[in-house]
Amino acid sequence: MSDAHRQSTKKTYRLRTDTHGPRKATVRVRDHAFTVDAPEASGGTDEGPTPVEYLLGALAGCVNVTGSRVASDMDIDLTVTGVDIEADIDPARFVGADTDARAGFDPIRVTVGLDTTEDEATVTAWLAEMESRNPVLDNLIAPTAVAFGVTR
Amino acid sequence: MSDAHRQSTKKTYRLRTDTHGPRKATVRVRDHAFTVDAPEASGGTDEGPTPVEYLLGALAGCVNVTGSRVASDMDIDLTVTGVDIEADIDPARFVGADTDARAGFDPIRVTVGLDTTEDEATVTAWLAEMESRNPVLDNLIAPTAVAFGVTR
Repeated sequence: MSDAHRQSTKKTYRLRTDTHGPRKATVRVRDHAFTVDAPEASGGTDEGPTPVEYLLGALAGCVNVTGSRVASDMDIDLTVTGVDIEADIDPARFVGADTDARAGFDPIRVTVGLDTTEDEATVTAWLAEMESRNPVLDNLIAPTAVAFGVTR
Repeated sequence: MSDAHRQSTKKTYRLRTDTHGPRKATVRVRDHAFTVDAPEASGGTDEGPTPVEYLLGALAGCVNVTGSRVASDMDIDLTVTGVDIEADIDPARFVGADTDARAGFDPIRVTVGLDTTEDEATVTAWLAEMESRNPVLDNLIAPTAVAFGVTR
């Protein structure tokens, strides 16, 4: 396909979030809503996962979606049965301590459960393709431009 | 504080995700669970937001949590009333097209609604500190190590 015929397929996502205090918020996107909160020990009311837990869940869900799509495109016998994540974070910067630590997770470890009859080379090729095409993973492993504005 | 007395405050998060087909999954973290799905037009059953929508919601929730904490630490009169996000994404790489486009969002635009009596310089200082201490933002703007393994 020449560049002249390569059309942009860019989409814009929009969501609104209403806050209910310093920890709790309701995120609204399309016809869905979900609650972000914090445990009581962290000053919240524990009515939902924390923001960083949703971040990890987004990655887990995206491994399933992208992995399933790639398996279909490769026409291989491979099903994602589960995605487990462990991720380390140092809250020192978040709480305002004098620290060189970064604010976010590093590293994140993902274990993908598979039901497959394919050989190891095929699974390795599937994994590489899944990583290359995974939107949430891309936003984590490569820098993303995030611009802030305020209204008052 | 000398390095010798600077103790690690690192925490490890863990979550498990069960899949229910190529689009739908249930993420379990602590005592919470949430459903990831896709619209019917994308092959899902639309029982919940998509992974990339949770990613944006995680950022919105983290702007509220971190922003509220920073306002409290700065002892200023500033409340986050809402967080709106718009983000552009090109699905070309996700669907396997021949493309140079990245897989994830770029850019992400965040508008923070504020109720505050503080002057513009104070709001600007608050915003800079919120950006510096925001865990989800840090994982988006700076590269994060993500390691994959499979079990079969």
